[in-house]
Amino acid sequence: MNKIKLHISYDGTRYSGFQIQDNAPTIQGELEKALAVIYKQPVRVTGAGRTDAGVHARGQAAHYEAPFHIAVSNLPAALNAVLPGDIVITGAEAVPADFHARFQAKRKIYCYTIDRAPYPQVLLRLYSYHFPAALDLEAMRAGAKLLQGRHDFAAFQAAGSTVRDTVRTLYRVELQDLPRIQLLKLRFEGDGFLYKMVRLLTGSLLKLGQGKLAVKDLAAALEGCCPAAASPAAPPHGLCLEQVIYE
Amino acid sequence: MNKIKLHISYDGTRYSGFQIQDNAPTIQGELEKALAVIYKQPVRVTGAGRTDAGVHARGQAAHYEAPFHIAVSNLPAALNAVLPGDIVITGAEAVPADFHARFQAKRKIYCYTIDRAPYPQVLLRLYSYHFPAALDLEAMRAGAKLLQGRHDFAAFQAAGSTVRDTVRTLYRVELQDLPRIQLLKLRFEGDGFLYKMVRLLTGSLLKLGQGKLAVKDLAAALEGCCPAAASPAAPPHGLCLEQVIYE
Repeated sequence: MNKIKLHISYDGTRYSGFQIQDNAPTIQGELEKALAVIYKQPVRVTGAGRTDAGVHARGQAAHYEAPFHIAVSNLPAALNAVLPGDIVITGAEAVPADFHARFQAKRKIYCYTIDRAPYPQVLLRLYSYHFPAALDLEAMRAGAKLLQGRHDFAAFQAAGSTVRDTVRTLYRVELQDLPRIQLLKLRFEGDGFLYKMVRLLTGSLLKLGQGKLAVKDLAAALEGCCPAAASPAAPPHGLCLEQVIYE
Repeated sequence: MNKIKLHISYDGTRYSGFQIQDNAPTIQGELEKALAVIYKQPVRVTGAGRTDAGVHARGQAAHYEAPFHIAVSNLPAALNAVLPGDIVITGAEAVPADFHARFQAKRKIYCYTIDRAPYPQVLLRLYSYHFPAALDLEAMRAGAKLLQGRHDFAAFQAAGSTVRDTVRTLYRVELQDLPRIQLLKLRFEGDGFLYKMVRLLTGSLLKLGQGKLAVKDLAAALEGCCPAAASPAAPPHGLCLEQVIYE
């Protein structure tokens, strides 16, 4: 047995998220189908983390136990030949037997893309959230700064989540304003993310930008007093998992 | 009657080109359907030019005779509400009665996008041609320079075309190398384009870049001696009509 780490990119538009489900197309399901074709036997894949239905990835990671040796340099092309066009393996590497794509992931970087053009930019419509309203970027930057650091993000997880420890560290929350191409990108780098956390944070930053939320309310939400500040979640199609960082 | 000019963007992926056809989805067909809903009667649309099946547009133009007055500031939103999401009206303006979207178009700008990443960039796969082979950009730039100016482009039109005057002027043929995002963009600005001309020119420039064609063969093709230099056409999904320029 040898353990393989895959670098995976996908267009999440037509998938019910990363994690395998019965009767719904998922990234993990497609990966396991492709690996079964290559290895001629069932292969179980472990992802670095789930992404929700409709969320994209440029830099998802996963591992599996290879039943027999195939040169890692041949794996991406072999898998891409079998995978649907909206899932692309961009790299494969042999990793130590104790490597674990989820437990050993140290940081993740997500990017949320906002299309600020008056009408949707049609070639970006599947990968950005069209939000033409005026935004106070300085208020959003103040909010982004506040979010950075170690906080209890209990207010920023989807209702019904059962995670006990909701303390996470955001190393970076960054606004990149690109007026020439009418895009605003929000980058979140953290040691872990609760269910829908990035989309809820983005929704809150957009409320700040519209003056519908004050920075102090965001601060209160971080202290657990004001979960309402955290809604609504921005839609999934603007979100992309950019990178999973290992030691 | 008042004449309206529309600014149109579309994702050409699922369309059989701009021009209306029976039994196949087209941009013109969708526009005329949407206008019929808004105006409650048939409205005929005249585009600045056809785009082939699968070709995209950020800046297509068209005109129509409005059966009655609707404020142009309301037209984009009204039409977008009825159009499918992969066609977006980005502007509308009242134009003089003698305006003609095709006859008065002075220049068009096309952009062909080449994805040079080792494996396809999944979120760009519908809008770029994945071409990971090494390219001699200097040879391509020499070819681009040669193409600029007034030439007989008879060698660079699809077989079966019946256009008589095949002389066109290319004001600009420009390579934009973007190594950080692994894209190469080719921009063509000209007074008119023959059927498949941009895709055939792109195919030839890619052959130059691979050393499969010499600059002198390209020059010969421009003198009408070597139509073989012009093939094969690059695939449609990398091509986008960026702008139609009027006086």
